Amino acid sequence: MDLELARQLSVTNQSKILLLVMDGLGGLPHPETGRTELETAQTPNLDALAAQSACGFTLPVALGVTPGSGPGHLALFGYDPLKYNIGRGALEAAGIDFDLQPQDVAARGNFCTVDGKGLVTDRRAGRITSERCGELCAELRQIALEGVEVFVEPLREHRFVFVLRPDGRASARGDGLPAGRRGLSDAVADTDPQQVGAEPAGPQATAPEGEATARLVALFVEEARRILADAGPANMLLLRGFARRPDWPSMSEVFKLRPAAVAHYPMYRGLARLVGMEALPAGPGIEDSIATVKENRGRFDYFFVHYKYTDTAGEDADFERKVEKLEEVDAAIPSLAALKPDVLMVTGDHSTPAVQAVHSWHPVPFLMRAPWTRADSCDAFNEVALEKGSLGTFPAVEALPLAMAHAGRLTKYGA
Amino acid sequence: MDLELARQLSVTNQSKILLLVMDGLGGLPHPETGRTELETAQTPNLDALAAQSACGFTLPVALGVTPGSGPGHLALFGYDPLKYNIGRGALEAAGIDFDLQPQDVAARGNFCTVDGKGLVTDRRAGRITSERCGELCAELRQIALEGVEVFVEPLREHRFVFVLRPDGRASARGDGLPAGRRGLSDAVADTDPQQVGAEPAGPQATAPEGEATARLVALFVEEARRILADAGPANMLLLRGFARRPDWPSMSEVFKLRPAAVAHYPMYRGLARLVGMEALPAGPGIEDSIATVKENRGRFDYFFVHYKYTDTAGEDADFERKVEKLEEVDAAIPSLAALKPDVLMVTGDHSTPAVQAVHSWHPVPFLMRAPWTRADSCDAFNEVALEKGSLGTFPAVEALPLAMAHAGRLTKYGA
Repeated sequence: MDLELARQLSVTNQSKILLLVMDGLGGLPHPETGRTELETAQTPNLDALAAQSACGFTLPVALGVTPGSGPGHLALFGYDPLKYNIGRGALEAAGIDFDLQPQDVAARGNFCTVDGKGLVTDRRAGRITSERCGELCAELRQIALEGVEVFVEPLREHRFVFVLRPDGRASARGDGLPAGRRGLSDAVADTDPQQVGAEPAGPQATAPEGEATARLVALFVEEARRILADAGPANMLLLRGFARRPDWPSMSEVFKLRPAAVAHYPMYRGLARLVGMEALPAGPGIEDSIATVKENRGRFDYFFVHYKYTDTAGEDADFERKVEKLEEVDAAIPSLAALKPDVLMVTGDHSTPAVQAVHSWHPVPFLMRAPWTRADSCDAFNEVALEKGSLGTFPAVEALPLAMAHAGRLTKYGA
Repeated sequence: MDLELARQLSVTNQSKILLLVMDGLGGLPHPETGRTELETAQTPNLDALAAQSACGFTLPVALGVTPGSGPGHLALFGYDPLKYNIGRGALEAAGIDFDLQPQDVAARGNFCTVDGKGLVTDRRAGRITSERCGELCAELRQIALEGVEVFVEPLREHRFVFVLRPDGRASARGDGLPAGRRGLSDAVADTDPQQVGAEPAGPQATAPEGEATARLVALFVEEARRILADAGPANMLLLRGFARRPDWPSMSEVFKLRPAAVAHYPMYRGLARLVGMEALPAGPGIEDSIATVKENRGRFDYFFVHYKYTDTAGEDADFERKVEKLEEVDAAIPSLAALKPDVLMVTGDHSTPAVQAVHSWHPVPFLMRAPWTRADSCDAFNEVALEKGSLGTFPAVEALPLAMAHAGRLTKYGA
């Protein structure tokens, strides 16, 4: 459903919708047992829920398309990820509560290690500590560039966010960015070569309007190289995903919901904020998130609860740990159900099969328990049993409209 | 996936993708046995392959839409057939290696038989020999029209291709096509009434820009009627599918594949050339095609192998022969699998149920064997067993992106 139609059909009522996202949920069979992570895990509570639910698979973007975290979540929030796309820089900035302005350009940065010839030997600089990252960011923040403010904000370990902002005073005087190039542009290619043994790329404009910005980035990188020369393993940096802040309609405008995100990892809170959710921090465990929902139940009518560790285990190729994490979530399902949401959805933002150890394109297990769901013969929550679900494989972007319907929040279309 | 996204996500690697198209593959139950052609045929090799594959049905164009050969194949090549449509004339020209130019207009022709009143009594002129067709085409090629060159190129039996090309010299002098109508147009309706007992239609423009061309075609048809008057059964001609050469991005540009078509029938090679495949001729049997793939394995990473006779049998309403042809292909599956493509797809361009004796709109059996396919419970290759496949019924245009994903040739979408 496009957002215009959603805006037209949505109404408010007293119902509560809860979406539990197990990151990287979907899997593939273990070569020895022939069973997927979900088939291997003991999940009596999810299975019982599946038996009471409409079941199927969500397709995050399109057949064969492996989603990043942004597209996978945006689809579940009801935003077509092919239309509402966000660059990595803006996503990371949102994830640390950095107040990205409309004229800013942000990029994701990595400290890295280069050898004597300038070739990358470690894209993550040996995963320096977050503390060390903070020190280095403080140094780089001192770099002065004409006409712009420079922000270098630490994330975890070797990661940071790099932001350029047009200098207000300079702009007011009219001597900010070079004449004829009125603002910053995100038309700048990654400097990250995405492999070791290669040299970091010089910042290149991907379109004429990016040329001034690319030159400023190049000046920053050269100055940073000088500053970092003796900084041990973190002797260089890589930038990728230059992006502006997206300007999207909010879930409250479009779906008339009061939405909240409950997530431990900042990036998922940042993502949720981009569609207008209030971001509620929570502890790392699923029980922490459930407690946060419980405390805030009265203020919101849509909760997005994010659970990260299924994806982490999958990316680490740790089949057993992914199974354990699934069982950990399963154990919390009774507390979640005790919150009595009118519509409860359990799914993932994408698949991360432990045998592949990366995000994949496979459709993602989905269940929805709600009034008026039509009977189906799926009675377990795994990739094989869900084939018997009544929902089949459907676009993830349709999950929210479907939940809205079951919550009595969508009116009739047409006379 | 639209081609722009495909262009953005596609990468190269060493993998091989093989698509086997059994033309007109899908069928319907025989009224006596209740079993379809595929259910009737003994296909142990395809069944074993299905058991190892992700299975389902492709939808070539849309629910209820019966595809011609062009749309059915273009979808499988990853080109949305509702967007990338080709007229019959251009398709037939491509199929005989005719070097159709951007300013040309081509149509498919049939020699036919008309009675004394000018009514069509046989749309195929008793299927005259290809030799006789060649003689008649040579005579018609002598027809002179002001400002254009005329080409009449024989196909098999009663079929030919008719092409008008703006006369270069005339254009240079400025006295070519009538003033104000700078070029030829394909906005000309078929003259083929598609039934016996009717008169061939006079060439009519379907839009104002087609008027000059329609007049030229009318002059050609009148002259041809005079020339053919005493040519026995082939005493008239019918034209259909006026079309220009399409100008589409190639599979190598979009999908970064080195693609080859292996087909006995020229039309399928022509179709494949329109999307930039190199066309490799092969003998009529499936084993001939497999030998051609084997010889050329090193030069390409995508092979489209076309097998015609399942469709021919279906169109002839010959249920038993279609069953035999399916068994013939099944017997060759081990040699095909021995080529060890990383991704092997077996499907059809459309259904041609022998009980209907024409192309139909029914979704088409599909299997894909590849690394990372998710387990499904389909263990035989027929219309009933495939209902248990994990892919369900999906757009045929998504088959290539799905294969690309399984071949590791699509990168992640979004941050």
